[in-house]
Amino acid sequence: MRFSVRLLEIEAGGNLIVVMGSRDAERLGVVSSDRLRIEAEDREAVAILNIAEEFPSGVLGVYREVAERLSLSDGDVVEVEPAERPESLSYVRRKIMGEKLSPGEIEQIVEDVVERHLSDVEVAAFVTALEIYGLSMEEAEALSLAMVKTGRTLDFGGGPILDKHSIGGVPGDKTTLIVVPIIAAAGYRIPKTSSRAITSPAGTADRMEVLAPVALKADEIVEVVNKVGGCIVWGGALDLAPADDLFIRVEYPLAIDPLLLPSIMSKKRAVGSTHVVVDIPTGRGAKVKTIGQAHALAMDFIELGGRLGIEVECAITEGEQPIGYAIGPILEAREALEALGGRGPEDLVDKATTLAGILLEMVGETNGKEMALELLRSGRALEKMREIIEAQGGDPEVEPEDLEPSRRWADLEAEEEGRVLWINNHHIAEIARIAGTPSDKGAGIMLRVKLGDHVKRGEPLMRIYAESSKRLEEALELAEELQPIGVGGRRGERMLIAKVKGLKPHRRRFILER
Amino acid sequence: MRFSVRLLEIEAGGNLIVVMGSRDAERLGVVSSDRLRIEAEDREAVAILNIAEEFPSGVLGVYREVAERLSLSDGDVVEVEPAERPESLSYVRRKIMGEKLSPGEIEQIVEDVVERHLSDVEVAAFVTALEIYGLSMEEAEALSLAMVKTGRTLDFGGGPILDKHSIGGVPGDKTTLIVVPIIAAAGYRIPKTSSRAITSPAGTADRMEVLAPVALKADEIVEVVNKVGGCIVWGGALDLAPADDLFIRVEYPLAIDPLLLPSIMSKKRAVGSTHVVVDIPTGRGAKVKTIGQAHALAMDFIELGGRLGIEVECAITEGEQPIGYAIGPILEAREALEALGGRGPEDLVDKATTLAGILLEMVGETNGKEMALELLRSGRALEKMREIIEAQGGDPEVEPEDLEPSRRWADLEAEEEGRVLWINNHHIAEIARIAGTPSDKGAGIMLRVKLGDHVKRGEPLMRIYAESSKRLEEALELAEELQPIGVGGRRGERMLIAKVKGLKPHRRRFILER
Repeated sequence: MRFSVRLLEIEAGGNLIVVMGSRDAERLGVVSSDRLRIEAEDREAVAILNIAEEFPSGVLGVYREVAERLSLSDGDVVEVEPAERPESLSYVRRKIMGEKLSPGEIEQIVEDVVERHLSDVEVAAFVTALEIYGLSMEEAEALSLAMVKTGRTLDFGGGPILDKHSIGGVPGDKTTLIVVPIIAAAGYRIPKTSSRAITSPAGTADRMEVLAPVALKADEIVEVVNKVGGCIVWGGALDLAPADDLFIRVEYPLAIDPLLLPSIMSKKRAVGSTHVVVDIPTGRGAKVKTIGQAHALAMDFIELGGRLGIEVECAITEGEQPIGYAIGPILEAREALEALGGRGPEDLVDKATTLAGILLEMVGETNGKEMALELLRSGRALEKMREIIEAQGGDPEVEPEDLEPSRRWADLEAEEEGRVLWINNHHIAEIARIAGTPSDKGAGIMLRVKLGDHVKRGEPLMRIYAESSKRLEEALELAEELQPIGVGGRRGERMLIAKVKGLKPHRRRFILER
Repeated sequence: MRFSVRLLEIEAGGNLIVVMGSRDAERLGVVSSDRLRIEAEDREAVAILNIAEEFPSGVLGVYREVAERLSLSDGDVVEVEPAERPESLSYVRRKIMGEKLSPGEIEQIVEDVVERHLSDVEVAAFVTALEIYGLSMEEAEALSLAMVKTGRTLDFGGGPILDKHSIGGVPGDKTTLIVVPIIAAAGYRIPKTSSRAITSPAGTADRMEVLAPVALKADEIVEVVNKVGGCIVWGGALDLAPADDLFIRVEYPLAIDPLLLPSIMSKKRAVGSTHVVVDIPTGRGAKVKTIGQAHALAMDFIELGGRLGIEVECAITEGEQPIGYAIGPILEAREALEALGGRGPEDLVDKATTLAGILLEMVGETNGKEMALELLRSGRALEKMREIIEAQGGDPEVEPEDLEPSRRWADLEAEEEGRVLWINNHHIAEIARIAGTPSDKGAGIMLRVKLGDHVKRGEPLMRIYAESSKRLEEALELAEELQPIGVGGRRGERMLIAKVKGLKPHRRRFILER
């Protein structure tokens, strides 16, 4: 059937979608979500159909992605016919039925996800089924390899490539900004790609961006790493595993994450990593709640790494409270620079040198942690960081004092004297977000206390920074409502934990960032 | 944040969707699929966000549904802020985790589906989880009631309301066109709502539409039924269970149907049915393959009916081959009229009078089947059908001879002498679709043989009708390729079932129609 093209001049989120009126669809014998083959001169594409009740007869509405693929202009005539569904849809269906898929079938699904032959609804069903049934190690391997195959890879020309990954979930974790220069200062290569915040106050890419550009192209990354040994860049636009971004798009609203392992490991394989340390923060406020769960996850990382030819070690780390004191891009970059300069908070320095030490021992060094500490103390890690900043296009002379947070601030004060009994990671993150992070780079939180510290009534627990007084006020209000830092006598001395006044809206936050 | 409205002048399939550029989204701290509260003067709505890479800053793209709800014009200024996710999303998540949901939680999900507060991706995840875990009877009841509550109900003012439903899957099943007039002729009320074909050659609404208009409004249905006792109308636009249509939209591409029971029974409850016979065609070519499965499904229908205050009996019927000989709207309407006139094929007459008989006995009649046969033989059922046709606005004088199929036809001939060993329902349906059904009402198939019949080589097995010679040729070609009717000696005499020549594209068809 012939249709006249009407450009809708809007994107469909990367999907290949066309629109026709219900009567045309009836005539073609198709319904919403059916596939159509669109032929325009010598080009053709398969798109997914949306049906509009009110749409002129004989007209095919074309979203920008389809228009670009077929070079269509308004009024062009195209031939449209029903197309078969992709074979991978039957594999998705079989996964829903609980069957195990073969590597070839998984590869076909991933290819069709990337080619947009599967709709968001179909991808959602696949991801839901994976969440419910879990992934076998064979499926995780096949998914990882398929995600690498459908993306871009980096090539550093052989030799060990070190890498570090945190599964995240703990605010203020600027460890990467210290590990990377330590490893590079030790003479190893570490091309670190990282993410921006989605629902957290800052991602590693947001922190590094305070110091240098992070949106490097693939060849620039190779150049920087070959020159100075390391980089800290944003991985989002590198197309390392485009399927993963599409899976995340449906995982995010559902707050599920069945592809955690393949998602992470495919990107490590795509950048050619040979030795990876995976940080698994564990604690009631972290993604992983118990040491048992953390061990199980660690085993999976190690096994999947082995299957992909990557040596993996895992570190189960304290995740009960934020790392260091700073939360928010500028505040965290400042704290990281201070740590590189020998003035960092103990927990941050310990965590960074422990992870760096594990990596160094994986490639044959002895006393890795001592070596990492020495590289920090000697100033060689800081020097290396300045080289990395310069190579990425930033100012190598930057000093912590240059990094100024937002000028408006307010303190949350202790309502009573006592010890800090808990710090709620989720609430800290939420308050920082309300204060403006990560888009307001200077916004955020400086904790004034950590677990176990003693405070007097009226002493500040944390300082909130924001760009506008409205944001500041909202964040402070939320902090007062949530009481993210619990102060009390020794456990057991006083039994009241909190007073509940009236009905508060229930808040839920899910952090899906890799 | 303030935005200037740009009307996109296109529907989003009923969904409430707005579009903004990626930088604006970053500034608002939201990502695709997040909810936004849109305020325009004194009106407000919560919509789901799509992000476009290329979109002017400060502009909010608004699909027609949102524009209508907020009465927006191009250039209007609206206030936009992130909104909380609906609480029901956390219930969807809990269902994914395998928990049982309470009736209140299920009702909230269904409400949010109907109000479009849940996206297609989220609905897909819910439906997938239901498919995988199955529904408890409590959940089926809650879903049915919620689907009724969010839709329209019909009120016939008390007394028994009879109904008939087939779970479908067998081509040529025009039984309803005979059952309804029999029941009405017996003095009972039977307001039959039915569906159009989605992937089958004809739905009951398509068949009836040959004889009379079927898109009646709710008050017209009540009027017709109160006047003549019965009707056969299209239920699609009645809004009896709008949630169901939205569930089907995501079930269809996935070819899953976890909501079969609540979907059917909610509509029965919405029209006020008190006594329902459910037809479960069973056989290798039907939806239900074995008698055991059919029994289990029957038990579920009866139990769910009881919970909803509806008396249900089920009939497990032969589903190995099409019902009667005719497939396609006009051909089937003709065959149904012939059956009402006493000249119907045995299997169709037997099935219709059996189902009608069950219904009659449910409301206290004795010898229901004999009574049904008598109403048919006496011509009273035909007379009643003419009343129904007239009341719905059709021509009561219509005769079978007036119903002419498409003028182009071709016969599929037996390649050898023997008995008809099988008739493949799926293939028959597929050939009829290719020939043009259901949109070409005169297209279709007349079988010339049924299971067990003896044919000579060269005798016609079936006649295919189509509007165009292209359609006819394609359908005949497909028929020759598929060989939907198997002819052979007695079983065991000859062992070759089919010769396989070369690689044929794999065809899959799923029929989801209620």
